[in-house]
Amino acid sequence: MDGMLLAELQSVVPGRVSTATETLDRYSRDQGPLLSPALPVAVVRARTVEDVQELLRWATRHGVPIVSRGAGSGVSGGAHATDGCVVLSLEDMNRIVAITPDDETAVVEPGVINGELNDAVAEHGLMYAPDPASYRWSTIGGNVATNAGGLRCAKYGVTRESVLALDVVLADGTLVSVGHRPFKGVAGYDLAALMTGSEGTLGVIVGITVRLRYLPHAVHTLAAFFEDFPKAAEGVLAIGRARVQPAILELLDGRTLEALDGAHGSELRRRGGALLLVQTDGYGAAAEADVIRAALTELGAVVNQEDSAEAEQLVDLRRHSRGDSVDDLYRVGEDVAVPKSRLVPYVAALEAMAQKHRVQLKVVAHAGDGNLHPTFWVDRSEGAQGLERLEEALDESVRSALEFGGTITGEHGVGQYKQRWLAWEQSTEVLDLQSGIKRLFDPLGILNPGKAIG
Amino acid sequence: MDGMLLAELQSVVPGRVSTATETLDRYSRDQGPLLSPALPVAVVRARTVEDVQELLRWATRHGVPIVSRGAGSGVSGGAHATDGCVVLSLEDMNRIVAITPDDETAVVEPGVINGELNDAVAEHGLMYAPDPASYRWSTIGGNVATNAGGLRCAKYGVTRESVLALDVVLADGTLVSVGHRPFKGVAGYDLAALMTGSEGTLGVIVGITVRLRYLPHAVHTLAAFFEDFPKAAEGVLAIGRARVQPAILELLDGRTLEALDGAHGSELRRRGGALLLVQTDGYGAAAEADVIRAALTELGAVVNQEDSAEAEQLVDLRRHSRGDSVDDLYRVGEDVAVPKSRLVPYVAALEAMAQKHRVQLKVVAHAGDGNLHPTFWVDRSEGAQGLERLEEALDESVRSALEFGGTITGEHGVGQYKQRWLAWEQSTEVLDLQSGIKRLFDPLGILNPGKAIG
Repeated sequence: MDGMLLAELQSVVPGRVSTATETLDRYSRDQGPLLSPALPVAVVRARTVEDVQELLRWATRHGVPIVSRGAGSGVSGGAHATDGCVVLSLEDMNRIVAITPDDETAVVEPGVINGELNDAVAEHGLMYAPDPASYRWSTIGGNVATNAGGLRCAKYGVTRESVLALDVVLADGTLVSVGHRPFKGVAGYDLAALMTGSEGTLGVIVGITVRLRYLPHAVHTLAAFFEDFPKAAEGVLAIGRARVQPAILELLDGRTLEALDGAHGSELRRRGGALLLVQTDGYGAAAEADVIRAALTELGAVVNQEDSAEAEQLVDLRRHSRGDSVDDLYRVGEDVAVPKSRLVPYVAALEAMAQKHRVQLKVVAHAGDGNLHPTFWVDRSEGAQGLERLEEALDESVRSALEFGGTITGEHGVGQYKQRWLAWEQSTEVLDLQSGIKRLFDPLGILNPGKAIG
Repeated sequence: MDGMLLAELQSVVPGRVSTATETLDRYSRDQGPLLSPALPVAVVRARTVEDVQELLRWATRHGVPIVSRGAGSGVSGGAHATDGCVVLSLEDMNRIVAITPDDETAVVEPGVINGELNDAVAEHGLMYAPDPASYRWSTIGGNVATNAGGLRCAKYGVTRESVLALDVVLADGTLVSVGHRPFKGVAGYDLAALMTGSEGTLGVIVGITVRLRYLPHAVHTLAAFFEDFPKAAEGVLAIGRARVQPAILELLDGRTLEALDGAHGSELRRRGGALLLVQTDGYGAAAEADVIRAALTELGAVVNQEDSAEAEQLVDLRRHSRGDSVDDLYRVGEDVAVPKSRLVPYVAALEAMAQKHRVQLKVVAHAGDGNLHPTFWVDRSEGAQGLERLEEALDESVRSALEFGGTITGEHGVGQYKQRWLAWEQSTEVLDLQSGIKRLFDPLGILNPGKAIG
């Protein structure tokens, strides 16, 4: 960067700017596959709303792209640096501003870690429901920017359902408040929902009012082992037909069980070819678990009522069954979602694709939402040929999900990596509307360019 | 309207156009207070998506405003005719296109009545959760256009949380699909959420994919009678502090009980000065009801476990405790919401305002959401002076809700009537963003002009 520009940046956010090579490198990417590596020209670690406003005023004056990020836990490259950008890290804006137990709300800065908010509100009998697998290190700001999902959203909804109000710094440095502090509010267009999931392309989220939920009175966890993966997927439908809503409903295939056994010394794969992990919660948890156990047993599953230690361990293992290593070009985790009734045929189609393209496959799914995380991989030693087959399998898995009435991304976001699939899902007219919204909020195109939309 | 224009309209949507005076009159307004009466120049009752597209192409060619509506059950004037407009009624597009029990979704045309969808899905053990008081005659399209609330949204969320995907005809007649058919999806900006609650100002909703919920296994209803209204409001907090989530949590003051008694021959007012009506549902319903009964009894309430007939009757009476007569200039029902912890002081403030301005007041509240419907009225015989006091009380009640951290409208929408309060809640910058979105979707300004946004 031009020395004058940099000097000006250092003067508008003094003490917050770093240009050390190792810092630039560390902030150059998130956990997503890296298509076109780039280093930021500087990293700004903001501590206040004013820092963010000053930075954006400077960026607007000079047309410098800003890539904002929390912990960098995203897996779609939404926080990858782009050429000539400044990375804005919100991780130091990590205060829990207020917890109001009677309102069942909290106000947080964007850098607050998801798990830390949950720890803080638990003493009030409350929880922040959205729980992406990264909850121990991802930030609420990043969760909102990607509209993150997680395990509990089968029952409690995704991040959007827990966001009441947002403070946002717009591209030109203007601070606005959108949404509403009460649980309900319909004044004007729903700009808080529009911001949620916009991946830093419409503004920088600097304050978040979230709705909290009640910590459940009781929790029951069932582990149902099935002969094979399609049969376990049928179990998901059986639970639905019993009209019981689990808090968590996770589907793990045999390869995932093997991987977990290898990493954690468990012996899950010996117990079956696929696992359906079910958690009910609340005052009806025990009765609901009974109904589910009966439905799954009838399907041929071996269902144990786990004691709470093993149950907790299984849920914990599941939380780590993806993200145990960083995605790269040779190993890519997908995030499609299909209507629930399509789970069984889609799972069968995935297995056929892996065979056809000679790639490795393991699958976990937030099955209650129809949201699947197939991971495809090839051995690095296969080089370009392996990569080509991997790409073909990925493309086919996405196209197939769309044919089943699904979406290219259930919860991870488009980021940089899924750009190539977006036009498969959305029409030119819809893509144009999104571009129009982008131009309205960010006429210079400085906010996380090349991400989220087409 | 110019005869040529009308002839062209009749040729593009043959058989759908009416200009009969009594039709124009009937479609000239909804249930909201009428500030500036206007007649439409024609009414078009569309039967197909193509009808809507043809109408909007014609409207775009000639710059004619289109006011779209379902049943006209809105109470904010969102469907009031404006000068020179054509009213587009979607009530004949009333097919339930698909119910997919395993997906737990339904696809409906906009004119489907809320209650009829619920009747149709009940045989599958499913329900469409949003239940505005008008559910027996309001349409899903209108519910989506206003992001309607209702009684059950304390537990199940508002309309937005049940909308998965929308087909929308844009101002120029283009048909687009937004949202996603699976429960989760984060591809691009959340245009389905943006459309939900936009009151026909961004496009005309012609198809809706909704998420259904499970019909509850059991339902328990409690009627808790309190000495007075503020004490009953404290009961709402007590339930919250017990960390039990009711499906329905409704608060009715003494004047509302009197009105119900007068209209329905009940004897509610004799049993107490205010009523908290609580419904729990699901497998934990009985246990939850026990916890709530204990908490409210400790507060001094007289709590009956109603037998199911009386319980159902009470909920039904509550559903009709507002909307029993059309709002007009002498009687206006409000729709503010405040953070839950502010219910008690806000309720006290309302009572003080009514005294100060010498207006009548009754209040019902979706208390679980902090959403209040105070109704203020004066006798018509008081004429202009009464009206002036009524307006002062209304303004003060809204200003006070905002001072308590609330919103001017929890679920009814801004429509035409609440325009004057919108700028009290939202900053110029936010209003400008909304206008910008409006211009993007509707550059000619023909879609329900003068509604929803500032």
